[in-house]
Amino acid sequence: MTDNYRIALDAMGGDLGHGVVVEAAVKSLTRFADIELILVGDETLIGKELSRLKQDNHSRLSIHHATQVVDMDDEPRNALRNKKGSSMRLAINLVKEGAANACVSGGNTGALMATAKFVLKMLPGIDRPAITATIPSINGQTHMLDLGANVDALPDQLFQFAVMGAELVTAVEGVSNPRVGLLNMGQEAFKGNDKVKDAGRMLEESDLNYIGFVEGDDITMGDVDVVVCDGFVGNVSLKSMEGVAKLITTYMKEEFTRSLLARLVAFISLPLLKSMKRRMDPRNYNGASLLGLQGIVIKSHGGSDSVAFANAIKIARLEAMNNVPARIDKHIETMLNSQKEIS
Amino acid sequence: MTDNYRIALDAMGGDLGHGVVVEAAVKSLTRFADIELILVGDETLIGKELSRLKQDNHSRLSIHHATQVVDMDDEPRNALRNKKGSSMRLAINLVKEGAANACVSGGNTGALMATAKFVLKMLPGIDRPAITATIPSINGQTHMLDLGANVDALPDQLFQFAVMGAELVTAVEGVSNPRVGLLNMGQEAFKGNDKVKDAGRMLEESDLNYIGFVEGDDITMGDVDVVVCDGFVGNVSLKSMEGVAKLITTYMKEEFTRSLLARLVAFISLPLLKSMKRRMDPRNYNGASLLGLQGIVIKSHGGSDSVAFANAIKIARLEAMNNVPARIDKHIETMLNSQKEIS
Repeated sequence: MTDNYRIALDAMGGDLGHGVVVEAAVKSLTRFADIELILVGDETLIGKELSRLKQDNHSRLSIHHATQVVDMDDEPRNALRNKKGSSMRLAINLVKEGAANACVSGGNTGALMATAKFVLKMLPGIDRPAITATIPSINGQTHMLDLGANVDALPDQLFQFAVMGAELVTAVEGVSNPRVGLLNMGQEAFKGNDKVKDAGRMLEESDLNYIGFVEGDDITMGDVDVVVCDGFVGNVSLKSMEGVAKLITTYMKEEFTRSLLARLVAFISLPLLKSMKRRMDPRNYNGASLLGLQGIVIKSHGGSDSVAFANAIKIARLEAMNNVPARIDKHIETMLNSQKEIS
Repeated sequence: MTDNYRIALDAMGGDLGHGVVVEAAVKSLTRFADIELILVGDETLIGKELSRLKQDNHSRLSIHHATQVVDMDDEPRNALRNKKGSSMRLAINLVKEGAANACVSGGNTGALMATAKFVLKMLPGIDRPAITATIPSINGQTHMLDLGANVDALPDQLFQFAVMGAELVTAVEGVSNPRVGLLNMGQEAFKGNDKVKDAGRMLEESDLNYIGFVEGDDITMGDVDVVVCDGFVGNVSLKSMEGVAKLITTYMKEEFTRSLLARLVAFISLPLLKSMKRRMDPRNYNGASLLGLQGIVIKSHGGSDSVAFANAIKIARLEAMNNVPARIDKHIETMLNSQKEIS
C-alpha cells in the first residue's frame, strides 16, 4: 500500500460501455502520478481492452472482478436487493472497506444513490445526500446542490446542503469563506415559499458566509460560490441551462453553415469557435459529487465519453486529497455542539 | 369607434420612462394599421414627447391622463389602495370598461397582478392568474407558464395553467392541437413530487394533447408547445436560461476581442454574429401574458427599450385579435360541463 489516492471505477456503468472507462483510466494515470485506479467489472472484457491499449501491466492499475451490472432502468430497490455482485455495488464496497478513497460511476443515478446510502451510510447530522455539480460562471465556477437526489427538501435539509456545499468549495477550491446563496424566485426577503424563507433565517444565524437569496441568472454571473436549492428546482434549473447551451450551439452551427461565404467565415473563425466550444464543453464539468455520505462517490454522466469520465476521476482525486466527507463531518459536529451549548 | 384593436399602454411604468413607451407606440402604429393606442399617463410629459416625434395629431393615438405612478418598490397592497389614479390602474380600468381590448404595462409585476385581478376578476373556474412567456426553441418557440405569478400551485391549478396555455397557443399561433408537457425532474412516471404526478393524471384524462413529463432541456428542444410548472420552478428555470445566454454572450465577446487577429475575424464574422444576436435577442421575446383574467393584460419587462415594448404591443394585438380570454373561458366551461355530466 502506498500514499497514492485509490479510486474505484465502476467500469460497467454508463451508456457507452467499459471501453470509455478503461480509456479514461489510462489517460488519468498518465495525468496524475499520485493515483491508483481499480477497474471494477468483467475482468475478461476489461483485460481485453487493456491489452488493446497495451496497458496489461500498469503498476497503478488493477482489476476487481464483478459478475453483475446495474442496468439503466433497474429500480433502486432492485439494484440494492438483487445486484449485490454488480460493478457499482463492489466499487462502493471498496470505499466502505477502505480499499479505495473514492469511487466513480456512470451508472443509474437512483441505484447509485440508494446503494451508496445503504453501504456507506450518511454522516451524523445529515439527513439525505445531495447531488452537487459545478456550473461555469463569468469569472470561474459555481457549485450547485441539490440537483436531483431529493424531490423535495425541508429547511433543515437546505441548511445542511449549504454547509456541505461550503465545505466542498473550501476543500477543493481553497476559497476560505465561500459565498452561499439560496435559490429563490426573487431577491427580496418577502418572496418565495416558506421553506426557502425558513432556510434563509437559519443561514443568517449560521457561521456561513450567507449572501441571501439569489435568482436563476445569478448562478452563472459569478457573484456566488454555492447555490442551494431542493432537488426538483435544481434539476430543472440545470437542465434548462443545458437546453439553452444546446440551442445556442445549434443557432451557431446554422449561421456558420448558411452559405458558402458563411462557411468560409466559419473556417477563418475556427480557432475562436474552438476556444469558445472548449469553455462551454459540458465534458469539462462532468462529475457530480454525492455529498453527505461517509465516503466519496462521484456520479459521471451516463453518456460520458473518456474525456468526460476522466474529468469525474479528477474530481474524485481532488475530493480524496482534501478528504471532503471528514471536513463536512467536522463542520456539522461543531455546529451541533454549539447548538447544544446554547440550549 | 372603429373595428381597430384598441390597446391601452401604461406610459409611466418601466424603468426607462415614458419616452420608451411613446416611441414604441409610434413605431407600432406604423407597423399595424389595425390598432389604436391609448397612452395612459402624465399628459404634459407624453404630449411633449409626441411633439418631439412630430406625432401630435395621430388619428389612432390618444392620451388618457393619469396623475399617479406605481413605483417599482410599491407593495401590491399599497398600489391597490393608494394608487387608484395611477397610469397602471387606469390602463386596466380601460380594459374593464371595454374602452380598450388589451393593456400593456412595464410596471411593478406584483402590483400589476394584484390590480388586474382586483379590477378584471378571474375567469370562472380559474383560481389564479399565470404569467406566460415565449421561449425560443430549436424549431420555433415554446410557451411556458407560470413564470412567477404564484409561489406554488396545486394540481388543479397546474391543470388550469395547461388549459390556458393550450388555448393561447391555438389562438395566437394557429396550432390546432398543441403539445402540452408538465415540467418535472425526470420523464419517468414515478419521478417528481406528488403535485406534479397528480396534475399528470388529470392531464392524461383531459382533452388536451398531453405528452407527459418534460425536463428543463426540453423547453428549448422544440418537441413541446406548452410547458406547465408552478411559478417558483418556472421563474428559476427562465432566469437560469437567461443567465446562460448572458454567459455565452460574454464568452463570445471575450473570444472575439482577445487579440487584433480575433477582432479582425470578428469584423469578418459580423453579419453572422448579428444574425445570431437577433435570434437570441430577448427583446423579440418581450411581453408576458397574465392569463386567467377577464381581460388581456401584457407585462413588458421593466428594463424594456422601445423595440422590446413594441414586441409586447404586438402580443397584446395578437391576443386581442384572437380574443384569448373568451377562448379560455369557453374551454374551461366545456370541461366543467362534461365533468357535471359524468358526476
